[in-house]
Amino acid sequence: MIEILSLCFFDVVSSEELMTEFTLQLGTTLPLYEQIYRYVVDEIRTGRMRAGEALPSKRRLCSHLGVSMSTVETAYGMLVAEGYLESRPRSGYRVCTVRPLEPAPPPSPVPPAALFPASHVSVLSDCFSTSAVDTEAFPYASWARLSREAISRNAGLLQRGPGQGDLELRETLCRFLHQYRGVSCVPEQIIIGAGLEYLISLLLQLLPASTVLGLEDPGYHAIYRTADNLRLRSVPIPVDSQGMSADALARSPATVAYVTPSHQFPLGVTMPVGRRMELLHWAAAAPERYLIEDDYDSEFRYTTRPIPAMQGLDSGGKVVYVGTFSRSVAPSIRIAYLILPPILLDCYCRRFVHTSSTVSRFEQYTLRAFIDRGLYTRHLRRVGNLYRARCSLLTSALADLPGAQITGNNAGLHFLLWLEGREESAVCSSAAQAGFAIHGLSEYCHQVHPVCGGLVLGFAGMSASEIPERAADLRTAILRVSRL
Amino acid sequence: MIEILSLCFFDVVSSEELMTEFTLQLGTTLPLYEQIYRYVVDEIRTGRMRAGEALPSKRRLCSHLGVSMSTVETAYGMLVAEGYLESRPRSGYRVCTVRPLEPAPPPSPVPPAALFPASHVSVLSDCFSTSAVDTEAFPYASWARLSREAISRNAGLLQRGPGQGDLELRETLCRFLHQYRGVSCVPEQIIIGAGLEYLISLLLQLLPASTVLGLEDPGYHAIYRTADNLRLRSVPIPVDSQGMSADALARSPATVAYVTPSHQFPLGVTMPVGRRMELLHWAAAAPERYLIEDDYDSEFRYTTRPIPAMQGLDSGGKVVYVGTFSRSVAPSIRIAYLILPPILLDCYCRRFVHTSSTVSRFEQYTLRAFIDRGLYTRHLRRVGNLYRARCSLLTSALADLPGAQITGNNAGLHFLLWLEGREESAVCSSAAQAGFAIHGLSEYCHQVHPVCGGLVLGFAGMSASEIPERAADLRTAILRVSRL
Repeated sequence: MIEILSLCFFDVVSSEELMTEFTLQLGTTLPLYEQIYRYVVDEIRTGRMRAGEALPSKRRLCSHLGVSMSTVETAYGMLVAEGYLESRPRSGYRVCTVRPLEPAPPPSPVPPAALFPASHVSVLSDCFSTSAVDTEAFPYASWARLSREAISRNAGLLQRGPGQGDLELRETLCRFLHQYRGVSCVPEQIIIGAGLEYLISLLLQLLPASTVLGLEDPGYHAIYRTADNLRLRSVPIPVDSQGMSADALARSPATVAYVTPSHQFPLGVTMPVGRRMELLHWAAAAPERYLIEDDYDSEFRYTTRPIPAMQGLDSGGKVVYVGTFSRSVAPSIRIAYLILPPILLDCYCRRFVHTSSTVSRFEQYTLRAFIDRGLYTRHLRRVGNLYRARCSLLTSALADLPGAQITGNNAGLHFLLWLEGREESAVCSSAAQAGFAIHGLSEYCHQVHPVCGGLVLGFAGMSASEIPERAADLRTAILRVSRL
Repeated sequence: MIEILSLCFFDVVSSEELMTEFTLQLGTTLPLYEQIYRYVVDEIRTGRMRAGEALPSKRRLCSHLGVSMSTVETAYGMLVAEGYLESRPRSGYRVCTVRPLEPAPPPSPVPPAALFPASHVSVLSDCFSTSAVDTEAFPYASWARLSREAISRNAGLLQRGPGQGDLELRETLCRFLHQYRGVSCVPEQIIIGAGLEYLISLLLQLLPASTVLGLEDPGYHAIYRTADNLRLRSVPIPVDSQGMSADALARSPATVAYVTPSHQFPLGVTMPVGRRMELLHWAAAAPERYLIEDDYDSEFRYTTRPIPAMQGLDSGGKVVYVGTFSRSVAPSIRIAYLILPPILLDCYCRRFVHTSSTVSRFEQYTLRAFIDRGLYTRHLRRVGNLYRARCSLLTSALADLPGAQITGNNAGLHFLLWLEGREESAVCSSAAQAGFAIHGLSEYCHQVHPVCGGLVLGFAGMSASEIPERAADLRTAILRVSRL
């Protein structure tokens, strides 16, 4: 009697319908053996049948009920397999010891409404989101074609792949990052993972428990939370016009600093080479020190060419490099990469070598082919042009607001609109009334408090034709807040 | 001058070729502004140009070199953007402070060969792997079709999705797990993630730091490592013929127990309902106690129908349920799910609510459609039949070995071949000589040491036609080891 997943065995048939004394319901869709099984389970779980109690023999039961031997055998077999009954030679079937559960007390001090929060549906438009990307120029056809190739061509792609990610993708990334970002590494140093947050959480587990993380302030929220969740101490380090302050870092207890030198989040500052060298000197001064270079936003620069990664300036194995395809391809594909310097790689190999990869091999193949066949650079050029135009449209529409100043718009997918003389929170509320979810600079601040607030505005998710109207609505919302 | 990713700016042109005094190389593929830029960077980084030093004015330089003004402007613009030069009104361009790096000392005490280990290439066949799956019956065509549909149909799928996973997939899973596994939950309790290990690592971060994990011994290695990597204490709890010993658990300091009741890994034991209730009683006795039910291998049962999940027996919010599509679809797609009871869900919502999902939305869509359209249950029936046949072929070929006993072959994708009278390590070595990577039971043991060893054998990755020859080779390798 073999039944694999073909039974809907939790459909509701009330136990009253099953009744005592094995009265069977004929003409229902529930098989007879299932009815016998349920009856016995119910009797045992409610304590009406006790441990050690004997059941009728199979022969007696089938004549009593008028069913076939195989029906009873199936039911008893199931009850034995699940541990409700045991079968003893010569003494037949007896009930096993199963302690019935008392009716459970209310399990939780949390009020019921809070237990299962409704899925988060925002009524505000997130057209100014800093993580949105273009959906018009996405290469749907070529991505679908490569994806199909991945699925159909290679049965080996179904099996478990290397924990660090497929070697072919790591080789491709290694060449690409060398050529376009000046990153210097070998494929063995690369770990492919399901997003920056995942990889940073992995990286933080490679650091000693005594690590103190120096985080940018203002800075990317998720890193503060990731450190907290891993019970690692973090300290905010102020960001000035050149990026993280090297002096403040040196005065802090931090042993590892996390920075976004290409386009600081959220200020949009590009770190000049002098500051990069200062940070590298800081890291070189003690063996436990490292720099985490998050190059999340490096693909798009509008006024100058891309600036090489800090990782390429480092000759001492002090820079951990992380990057992502969230902005350059799509936030939903969840592929990022971590490049470990030798000592941390060695630690990874000892402690994480058996860890499974977190990225589908179909998508690893698709991305690898996308890069290797030149489609990725073509896509970057294409969306880079779109983003430059959108950035310029939105900044022009807002730049002449009284007291406004725009910074960080030379690269990436967001800029900062400073609002001299208007209260940031009042502006955000006014924007919310106009239907926009807008993030103020102070949301990203920890200890640093900006003299005047600002709005962190993304533009990549809107088409050029949408921008004028949205910008006009946002202007109106800002102007509705009177100046201090 | 806008150049986005169109320059191969790290191609090797030695600095000698660039020469002193701005001698330009004509006729190379390197643009003139690039040559000027590189020369200046090199001079500054090696310390030959010092901070504060003045550069020739743009006008002087372009007449000196005989190049256009825009060439010099581009080069100087790049140098300013990257922080090598600063431009001061009336005093022209000056070198910024950039501390040159001293030649780095050897950074690492690790011997160089160990730094970048060659990618792990196994010369042994892993046809008996416990994580392999069938590649013949995989529904390539329908998976590719649904995947194409996901990519082409819905541009919204490109943007960031909910951190817990797309609601549609969670709703589908909720229905499916209720119907086929007796799991009782709402979609809001489900978290979709990139593999069991990732989700268990997430779960462990929701538990207090004082948690002591009780882990099955013998048991799944990865969980021991995951706990270690998160600096959580774990204690091995012996597994007997009914699964994790409830008595040993009660005597241990464990506050949270991790169990595989459907098909214990690696012993293959199915936990009877009596033991399940004992564990639930243990968990109910203190507020910090939880059971983690890993239902990784529940889809395939060969002799009886699937046994409902322990989660469905729990009325006190004490069971955390985890499952995966690694075995039922493919290990390479990396989709698993975690179902949190109310108190832990509340903790997740407070601390992880902004965390990004780790699964591609294209694949979430594909899997959801695969289940909703009945293709998944059809696939399970189809491969279930294949696996039953393969299991039976392999067990029959090995069962009559002298001293051999087979257990755990009523379900899942592996069984245990006990080897009374032969030394396990000798058998594994002999198998390795015959070209097979075979895992002995003792590899999964922590404190428990089995009286006689055994082999943990998977069969799902071999076709029925391959099995007889492979089994015969393995038999020969086993028989080559003389009995004690």
